[in-house]
Amino acid sequence: VDADPNRIVLCSGYRQGVALVAAALRDRDATRVAVESPGQPEVSEMLSQAGLSAVELPVDADGAQVGRLDDLDVTAAVVTPAHQFPTGVPLSPSRRVGLLDWAARPDGVVLEDDYDGEFRYDRQPVGALQGLDPDHVVYLGTASKSLAPGLRLAWMVLPPSLMEECLAVKGLADTCGVLDQLTLAEFIGSGAYDRHVRSARLRYRRRRDALVAAIAARAPEVRVTGIAAGLHAVLRLPPGTEPSVVQAAAWQGLALHGLAFYRHAQATTEPLDALVVGYGTPPDHAWAGALEALCRVLP
Amino acid sequence: VDADPNRIVLCSGYRQGVALVAAALRDRDATRVAVESPGQPEVSEMLSQAGLSAVELPVDADGAQVGRLDDLDVTAAVVTPAHQFPTGVPLSPSRRVGLLDWAARPDGVVLEDDYDGEFRYDRQPVGALQGLDPDHVVYLGTASKSLAPGLRLAWMVLPPSLMEECLAVKGLADTCGVLDQLTLAEFIGSGAYDRHVRSARLRYRRRRDALVAAIAARAPEVRVTGIAAGLHAVLRLPPGTEPSVVQAAAWQGLALHGLAFYRHAQATTEPLDALVVGYGTPPDHAWAGALEALCRVLP
Repeated sequence: VDADPNRIVLCSGYRQGVALVAAALRDRDATRVAVESPGQPEVSEMLSQAGLSAVELPVDADGAQVGRLDDLDVTAAVVTPAHQFPTGVPLSPSRRVGLLDWAARPDGVVLEDDYDGEFRYDRQPVGALQGLDPDHVVYLGTASKSLAPGLRLAWMVLPPSLMEECLAVKGLADTCGVLDQLTLAEFIGSGAYDRHVRSARLRYRRRRDALVAAIAARAPEVRVTGIAAGLHAVLRLPPGTEPSVVQAAAWQGLALHGLAFYRHAQATTEPLDALVVGYGTPPDHAWAGALEALCRVLP
Repeated sequence: VDADPNRIVLCSGYRQGVALVAAALRDRDATRVAVESPGQPEVSEMLSQAGLSAVELPVDADGAQVGRLDDLDVTAAVVTPAHQFPTGVPLSPSRRVGLLDWAARPDGVVLEDDYDGEFRYDRQPVGALQGLDPDHVVYLGTASKSLAPGLRLAWMVLPPSLMEECLAVKGLADTCGVLDQLTLAEFIGSGAYDRHVRSARLRYRRRRDALVAAIAARAPEVRVTGIAAGLHAVLRLPPGTEPSVVQAAAWQGLALHGLAFYRHAQATTEPLDALVVGYGTPPDHAWAGALEALCRVLP
């Protein structure tokens, strides 16, 4: 993302970015914000902490159903357009247009979570929405996936109207250590960050390929869905099998959630049986064993 | 401070610690907190941001006048007992007892800012109040003075009753980078931190000695007050001269505040004319020049 440096705010992780914007929206008397379902439960939790209601925005094969936003009576929407979490689909071109149309109201705000924009394996990633409407889209990027979550380094690009409000919420108390910031700036400026991301992309892509191949060979009833991107895959299961597969995985020592875990608490859509598999987590020496254990528990 | 590790909370700077406790007190329906005057204006500002009133607690030669706390109708007090900022006096033994007596009510809370406890030059520092009443005193320490403020590393020792509330306020969003934490832990564990503090203490002590000697020789109307400790000294000026000396210092390129800057906005006590001189800031090569410039502007 190319953005005016004066509109970038560094945050201690993506979560702090969401919390700051949520508090700023609350100060504007917003009450309802749309969140994707399935989506990240923490986003709903952070909105609640800020005193906002997280309203279900259902996701289908084309991404978030943005056509419903008008009926949801929300001020803002938190979305993952590049690679929906957890379903793994990108937001379709017509929905991208629809989302920007919806946001182009006086107080409309889209929070664009580009959480693994660095990791697309099949083609160049699509551009960020933020570049298309910098006055209504908050861009959120993070080093948590490309480097390490423990760094707590993320960044926002803010619309001018939200800049002052977010800084006021951030207040006097809230600052990130400068050593990590300067180290990251040096890492990016030297080109080493780009080399690191390229090599990480290759490693993750090989893991994903191994996962897809193993499932095709050993679990013919299971289908890998979503685009070739990111650090997780969604495995569609035969109807009714999700709870028992999640249980069996836990017995094998695999920390996996079913898709049910990511559904909105008041979700209205039909549940689908699926496993969300993060293939980035195991260290190299444990990966083959983890994949073998996964294949054992799949129907 | 020896404290139960389960009661230590790491913060991104002393300010975040104050902000967290302030928000927790607000959630308990507290409305008024005593702050030292003269004192740190940021403390009042952070309390205001949390929705609390910062109530004036006057400071005299024995430190904060804690005998007034009963009349101030406050739930908590923020104090600098080891070395009052900015006047540089320690809280007298009888007032330490008085403060703990006041705090020993069901909801009484003292925030003990031990901001430069590492830097006492004349004797061993007095022990922290927190050790005397861990159920009512919040201890706040920081690496900002001993290492660098840009690290944003500080720590609190919390009473059990405040632990859960502060963690709830800290919430999901608010975390410090682990690399800096691990680096500091290694630095402390290896003994290198202690060596660094001892050598810094010697360097700062020499600066203070040079300041005291230069003033005795060149500005006989000015008196250095406060104990031999910390990174700043208070220079008492002839009555009525503070504004013109501050102005002249600015013309010399010295960034100094008069004592008036640190007074409570509704201070009721008689103002004293004085300069607050931080002698830790100039790099070694600039120190002699800065001291010379200071002597030129003193009456």
